[in-house]
Amino acid sequence: MRETWVAGAATNRYGKMAETGREAGSRVALEAIRSAGLEPKEIDLTFVANAFGIAEHQAHVGPLVNTALGIPEVPSATIESACSSSSAALHEAYVHVAGGFADAVLVVGFEKLSHLDTLAATSYFAIGADYPYEAHNGATFPGLYALMANAHAQRYGTSEAELGAVAVKNHANGALNPHAHFQKPISPEIYRASPVVASPLRLYDCCPFSDGAAAVVVTARERFPHPAAEPLVVRASVRAGSIGDIQDRSTLTALPATRRAAERAFRTAGIEAGRIGFFEVHDCFTIAELIALEDLGLFPPGAAGRATVDGITAHDGAHPVNPSGGLKAKGHPVSATGVGQVVEIFEQVNQRAGGRQVPRTETALAHNVGATGSSCSVHIFGRR
Amino acid sequence: MRETWVAGAATNRYGKMAETGREAGSRVALEAIRSAGLEPKEIDLTFVANAFGIAEHQAHVGPLVNTALGIPEVPSATIESACSSSSAALHEAYVHVAGGFADAVLVVGFEKLSHLDTLAATSYFAIGADYPYEAHNGATFPGLYALMANAHAQRYGTSEAELGAVAVKNHANGALNPHAHFQKPISPEIYRASPVVASPLRLYDCCPFSDGAAAVVVTARERFPHPAAEPLVVRASVRAGSIGDIQDRSTLTALPATRRAAERAFRTAGIEAGRIGFFEVHDCFTIAELIALEDLGLFPPGAAGRATVDGITAHDGAHPVNPSGGLKAKGHPVSATGVGQVVEIFEQVNQRAGGRQVPRTETALAHNVGATGSSCSVHIFGRR
Repeated sequence: MRETWVAGAATNRYGKMAETGREAGSRVALEAIRSAGLEPKEIDLTFVANAFGIAEHQAHVGPLVNTALGIPEVPSATIESACSSSSAALHEAYVHVAGGFADAVLVVGFEKLSHLDTLAATSYFAIGADYPYEAHNGATFPGLYALMANAHAQRYGTSEAELGAVAVKNHANGALNPHAHFQKPISPEIYRASPVVASPLRLYDCCPFSDGAAAVVVTARERFPHPAAEPLVVRASVRAGSIGDIQDRSTLTALPATRRAAERAFRTAGIEAGRIGFFEVHDCFTIAELIALEDLGLFPPGAAGRATVDGITAHDGAHPVNPSGGLKAKGHPVSATGVGQVVEIFEQVNQRAGGRQVPRTETALAHNVGATGSSCSVHIFGRR
Repeated sequence: MRETWVAGAATNRYGKMAETGREAGSRVALEAIRSAGLEPKEIDLTFVANAFGIAEHQAHVGPLVNTALGIPEVPSATIESACSSSSAALHEAYVHVAGGFADAVLVVGFEKLSHLDTLAATSYFAIGADYPYEAHNGATFPGLYALMANAHAQRYGTSEAELGAVAVKNHANGALNPHAHFQKPISPEIYRASPVVASPLRLYDCCPFSDGAAAVVVTARERFPHPAAEPLVVRASVRAGSIGDIQDRSTLTALPATRRAAERAFRTAGIEAGRIGFFEVHDCFTIAELIALEDLGLFPPGAAGRATVDGITAHDGAHPVNPSGGLKAKGHPVSATGVGQVVEIFEQVNQRAGGRQVPRTETALAHNVGATGSSCSVHIFGRR
């Protein structure tokens, strides 16, 4: 396998986009290519993630992005894996480059849903789960994650204060991130006063619907040895699956796909969770961050809530988690999310993260989940 | 690169499915795995193609197929490239196996649209083109391909009789294929009597909307050296792109993406078009088959129509094209189509094609187009 880098990265500010997805995606893609010190004509292959292009009446968007970049002849494909679409696309890019099939691959994810009403947006999201068994019976994502939160509370005593600590931390980080959808800190009081969406999850336990676009460029070290910025070395790129509908799983307090992917990723990279410098994890709901940190092995089952309350996962804590603000505060433009996590890691490694800069950037981990965990991607990055 | 095989293949009968896409896809996937002499637990990775899952309220369908197969832990992703979705998925499978990332990869494509009315189905199809420039202004696929047909006629004198000869040939082949949507031959008189859809294209110039499912299993020779059936050796797996909207292209009488992909595929495989035993090409409209054969270099520009009239591309002709019946008569369940072409090649190579059996099966080529050719996949297969 060839040494494979993330050599460039860019994102827009998540939130509400006036431009179309393809416009935002093409612009951010160009920025990512330039940040690597490359030109579009050096790109061999493009992977796009845009799970809900139907909301803009547009599928097959790779040729449109490539045409906008002036490289229409370059092959492209769209990768979909619900909320883990762009990390799945990143994995494909890694395989092409590490395997010697391409030297420079563009991965761009974008989503635009803000022009829809909330019911329509929720309906689109819900088709990422097992529709006939879940959404068709009224169980959309807030309800499904609420079931996990209740099971976790019953088994480990996870408290409202612990869930709230995740929200407060991630909003504090988002307030320091100019790319974040929400850039205002919240207090525990504000969290507790927010309405219940699906008990025990309150409004501030839930990530928002966001528009957004993010892109990275994946390159072969041997072909492009002198990038314009400090690259991320891909130490592990692993994906795993799980039963789709949560009713058929043997546990509601863990995501089996995270455990599988993490175990293989740590083995491949030869590192343990405790030695990772910082984490970007999939906190679509506060409970999801706690479960992720336990599945990844950073904390024992049931211990992530206490660690969060104690500040261990703050951006200046011993084990920073979601310094970007996470899905919770940076936002969750579905198909931008996975690549957007890597953009944050790229900015941290290049010491461009301003007030949210984490102390240790030698290694970092990105964890991105599809639906309620029926797909999961784990990427571990190191330094040259 | 490791020698990579298509070691198993299966399809259902295209047409109208009573079962859901995921049910049909899972069943056909299991048949494909068994036809390779494997069990589901030997699958390392699943790629699904299902471009219009939205029509069944279901995205992220890989985990659902894997769960049905009893292998929920296996990673999966959905690949979309409009009508070339499943050949794009096959290419990803090839890269994973040839590059040593996986030993056995399932590729399954399926589509179900027959429960929608024709306008809704056409609207879904249309988002595969460049929506704001084309479908939004009323140019859906029949109109776009009619523009190409008119340009081709103006430049080369392509006649109604030549277009009709493609339809008559492919319906004759479909009549011999138990998997085909249409299994009735048509006469030139029936062709000429059919109504105009978009001049010069008549009803019988157009492929149907079909439901359907098709699957193949891609394996590493070194890991599974004794398949249950005669495998296809992947000699070339190449994809290319082109400008999305046809108004911006320099030609309407050729698909630049086909030319690019074919040139590289022939070079990789070390073979010329004239020496290929038979072809499955993307005949979404009759004109598309003629343009494909010219772009692939089997005939000079403008000569494919005459060759078709002369019977050269009949299943017992010198250069058989679409012995399956093609999209035209076998049918076009969008995301099953690309893999379905390979199923036909697998059946031909294993001498299971009955009355449509072609004489020379040492090499074969599959050509699959996304939209009006903004994406194209070319696969060349050989024998052990």
